[in-house]
Amino acid sequence: MERKTRITAEDGKQEITIAREFELPLELLFKAHAEPDIVEQWMSNEYTTTKLLKMESKKHGGWQLESKDGKGNVVFRANGVIHEFVPNKKITRTFEMENTPFGVQLEVYEFEQLTDDTSKLSMHVIYESVAQRDQILKLPFAQGINMAHNRLQEILSKLK
Amino acid sequence: MERKTRITAEDGKQEITIAREFELPLELLFKAHAEPDIVEQWMSNEYTTTKLLKMESKKHGGWQLESKDGKGNVVFRANGVIHEFVPNKKITRTFEMENTPFGVQLEVYEFEQLTDDTSKLSMHVIYESVAQRDQILKLPFAQGINMAHNRLQEILSKLK
Repeated sequence: MERKTRITAEDGKQEITIAREFELPLELLFKAHAEPDIVEQWMSNEYTTTKLLKMESKKHGGWQLESKDGKGNVVFRANGVIHEFVPNKKITRTFEMENTPFGVQLEVYEFEQLTDDTSKLSMHVIYESVAQRDQILKLPFAQGINMAHNRLQEILSKLK
Repeated sequence: MERKTRITAEDGKQEITIAREFELPLELLFKAHAEPDIVEQWMSNEYTTTKLLKMESKKHGGWQLESKDGKGNVVFRANGVIHEFVPNKKITRTFEMENTPFGVQLEVYEFEQLTDDTSKLSMHVIYESVAQRDQILKLPFAQGINMAHNRLQEILSKLK
């Protein structure tokens, strides 16, 4: 099946870009990245439940999230800081998967209106090294983000 | 004159490393990067006075600084967020020169004891793009950081 979320990773670089167009108004796409209860919904799935332990959606805010499996075991925890927060336009933040060797990522999210009912998310992710980027790309990363974005589309469509 | 602060910038990469050994105990070198009144001292010089408008030296803290010339005009302002703060060991933060096209940098500072009286600072700076890194390297950047580190050495020596 075609993946709607496109990842571009040039050889030998320590960055990737991720792009996805949504059948959602810009404001709703942005909310899906700023409001904790909405983030928790699309970042949860049939196997794991994601909770935001901290979500200060503002310039110089911090965030932390945790995912648990059906038995209540923590399977994923990540945290970071928000460098810039411009509603309906841009979020620049850091991202770190806790207890992994992948280091800290700098992430630039840009939100763009296409039509009244469609919008685009462009992500630019910069890693501490080429090696760390390449390790992350070996995870089922592309599938994971595509699935999460499919869920985002599905869940937010109900809020339109 | 030989510069004691060494900058390594490989062609075509979006990162640089900066290294400097100081005749200072590790704890003092770390303080020089964490305590606002000490940072303000070594980041000021005969032309500009630097003030920290915000300095939350902790995990998920924020910071902002401003430099003014002798007439009181703001000549430089920068801000960022602190992703990780491990006393005497490591600070990971973001850095952005305000009102410039240079983007946001991810900076990893590592502090290392060499002897009781000497220590080393290793900085790894990652840029949003190769082009932005190369633009910054065209500024009198190497001279500037070497001078600032010379001042750090001089001022902190008096606190030993």
